[in-house]
Amino acid sequence: MDFNERSLEMHKRHGGKLDTTPSISVETKDDLSIAYTPGVAQPCRVIAEDKERAWDLTIKGRTVAVVSDGSSVLGLGNIGPEAGLPVMEGKAVLFKRFANVDAFPIVLATQDVDEIVETVKRIAPGFGGVNLEDIAAPACFEVERRLIEELDIPVMHDDQHGTAVVVLAGLLNALKVVGKEIGDVKVVMSGAGAGGMGIANLLLDAGVQHMSMVDSRGMIAVGRERMNSYKDTLAQRINPDGVTGSLVDAMQGADVFIGVSKAGLVTADMVSSMNEGAIVFALANPIPEIMPDLAREAGAAVVATGRSDFSNQVNNVLAFPGIFKGALEARAQKITREMLVAAAEALSKMVPNPSADEIMPDPFASGLAEVVAQTVKRHA
Amino acid sequence: MDFNERSLEMHKRHGGKLDTTPSISVETKDDLSIAYTPGVAQPCRVIAEDKERAWDLTIKGRTVAVVSDGSSVLGLGNIGPEAGLPVMEGKAVLFKRFANVDAFPIVLATQDVDEIVETVKRIAPGFGGVNLEDIAAPACFEVERRLIEELDIPVMHDDQHGTAVVVLAGLLNALKVVGKEIGDVKVVMSGAGAGGMGIANLLLDAGVQHMSMVDSRGMIAVGRERMNSYKDTLAQRINPDGVTGSLVDAMQGADVFIGVSKAGLVTADMVSSMNEGAIVFALANPIPEIMPDLAREAGAAVVATGRSDFSNQVNNVLAFPGIFKGALEARAQKITREMLVAAAEALSKMVPNPSADEIMPDPFASGLAEVVAQTVKRHA
Repeated sequence: MDFNERSLEMHKRHGGKLDTTPSISVETKDDLSIAYTPGVAQPCRVIAEDKERAWDLTIKGRTVAVVSDGSSVLGLGNIGPEAGLPVMEGKAVLFKRFANVDAFPIVLATQDVDEIVETVKRIAPGFGGVNLEDIAAPACFEVERRLIEELDIPVMHDDQHGTAVVVLAGLLNALKVVGKEIGDVKVVMSGAGAGGMGIANLLLDAGVQHMSMVDSRGMIAVGRERMNSYKDTLAQRINPDGVTGSLVDAMQGADVFIGVSKAGLVTADMVSSMNEGAIVFALANPIPEIMPDLAREAGAAVVATGRSDFSNQVNNVLAFPGIFKGALEARAQKITREMLVAAAEALSKMVPNPSADEIMPDPFASGLAEVVAQTVKRHA
Repeated sequence: MDFNERSLEMHKRHGGKLDTTPSISVETKDDLSIAYTPGVAQPCRVIAEDKERAWDLTIKGRTVAVVSDGSSVLGLGNIGPEAGLPVMEGKAVLFKRFANVDAFPIVLATQDVDEIVETVKRIAPGFGGVNLEDIAAPACFEVERRLIEELDIPVMHDDQHGTAVVVLAGLLNALKVVGKEIGDVKVVMSGAGAGGMGIANLLLDAGVQHMSMVDSRGMIAVGRERMNSYKDTLAQRINPDGVTGSLVDAMQGADVFIGVSKAGLVTADMVSSMNEGAIVFALANPIPEIMPDLAREAGAAVVATGRSDFSNQVNNVLAFPGIFKGALEARAQKITREMLVAAAEALSKMVPNPSADEIMPDPFASGLAEVVAQTVKRHA
């Protein structure tokens, strides 16, 4: 059975991947009268007097909503809520498996920013946090910004910030391998969608001083045509002089390439034009901007992709379970930039001796999510 | 430790009562690449081509949303979404325990009819059914009516129809005990909220010919003041001549009293004024309209309450798990009146030899939800 058939078979076997299970026993009339009426009235009364008690008397305190409108699912594009559900379920599975955080998928029959914000706000009382997922840019930026502002529980768009944390963790180790400092390197970002914007902003927060970002129309620059307000803001931060040019131009003399863009966008020549000790993160999925072998042949010292079949997989599962676990335990109302940078640093340290083939910790490393969680909690 | 303390302690132990659990194993990189990226892309693609496949490739086909705005929780009133959450979680627990149906609580930060309808419609793609719960009358009627019309998955307000099914099941057995026919008896309903309206309508569907319904202003009748459109419609069905009077008047010469109203509303004299072989369902919670001992002393032949500490408990758990299980298995788009009446008949037959102290099946009786489910499925 090939890989796709195996996946289909597995998803069909139980009807998806997630169960809702009682965490208490209901085997006697007495059990029933405590779990439900009349006993359940007591926690209701206590919470009615003090809403905060929902955090310890209900699932709220340990449960994250994994919310998507299905507008930008994996590499598949705008496939809608039903078709996005297997991803959101999978995410909920990983929350539980890696950080013992309960999570439930909520897929939305709307792709309107106002309606998404409104809907998430209305269902928020039952959740301790909101993981936004696979919402297309630029809608995702406004959805996230408004929900962070308007809700008192942590909200994070994982495609932006979870990815960014893992990329930063890997980059810190890759820099050790090539012996360069984060403040010195010239970083080229390719792709200004959710992932690209999230990564760019976090790298700047973490100390990157020299960055250019290229989208399908070339370098983003203040005043260029076809900018959105999010690109504008970033352009002011990285390219105040409004330098223009193509990806080919940008990569010349760069130290780090990070692509969250398009299969095969980068040629061997472009990698060869980078500085010695070049770091190439070709994260387009499922086919990277340049295949690892080719990139190495062209002179890259460290290569990472989003794929599990090459070394150095940039895998979000390294970050989001622990980040939310830490935020929930701290009862943080927001996930801050400091928490994210600290989480990345903690993750990078989970690889004691980074090498060209090992800049990422193993997601199955024991205690990994706990390390991330405790770091986030300390910074809350 | 008293009962309330025990309940609080139990709710605190795990932080609520419900877990989300992977139904698959994620122990290796291979597992991970099937549950999540890249393997998860295959079910996404299949569903993107045919939405219906979400029913067998995701949790949709086996998962019910338990939705409440917290406006009318148990006997506690309008305590809001957070305080209602323990009940909704409990409901989800019972769905799983009694019918192996997955369910997840959704509590809403709005009590506006349009907003509730809108929100449930927007989160519906991930669910196979919607159990509305503890929404105050008359809002609950419009919320349910519109959701049934506008969604293609079964929607049921359990306070109305689940309760009604269990009451009808109990009434059918109580009538056997006293040797009367459903078409002959005079039924008095007390309380015209969600429960009262649901019960009244189902009893009429099941063959009751003589009914009066009393709310806090007396018998409901066409043209009376302080009616709503739902009471009006019912009044046309049961009291076309516009007879007026009080509960005392209505109970004189009645065969059946069903109260979903207020503690202590019914006196011994009122029960004594009923016909011989009187049936009294005093379902106000936690304190019934009349205590069972008193009702029996006053001449009632069969007494039921909502309480677990007396015999003949009218307990919704007898109905809703099996009803939704059957509807999901049949992929029914609606839960029809026929399904509900059939479910009640099936439930009543689960008591082979009804007696004054045993008109209700035991919720823990093995196979009970399955019998209800198969009955509902046959009528889909």
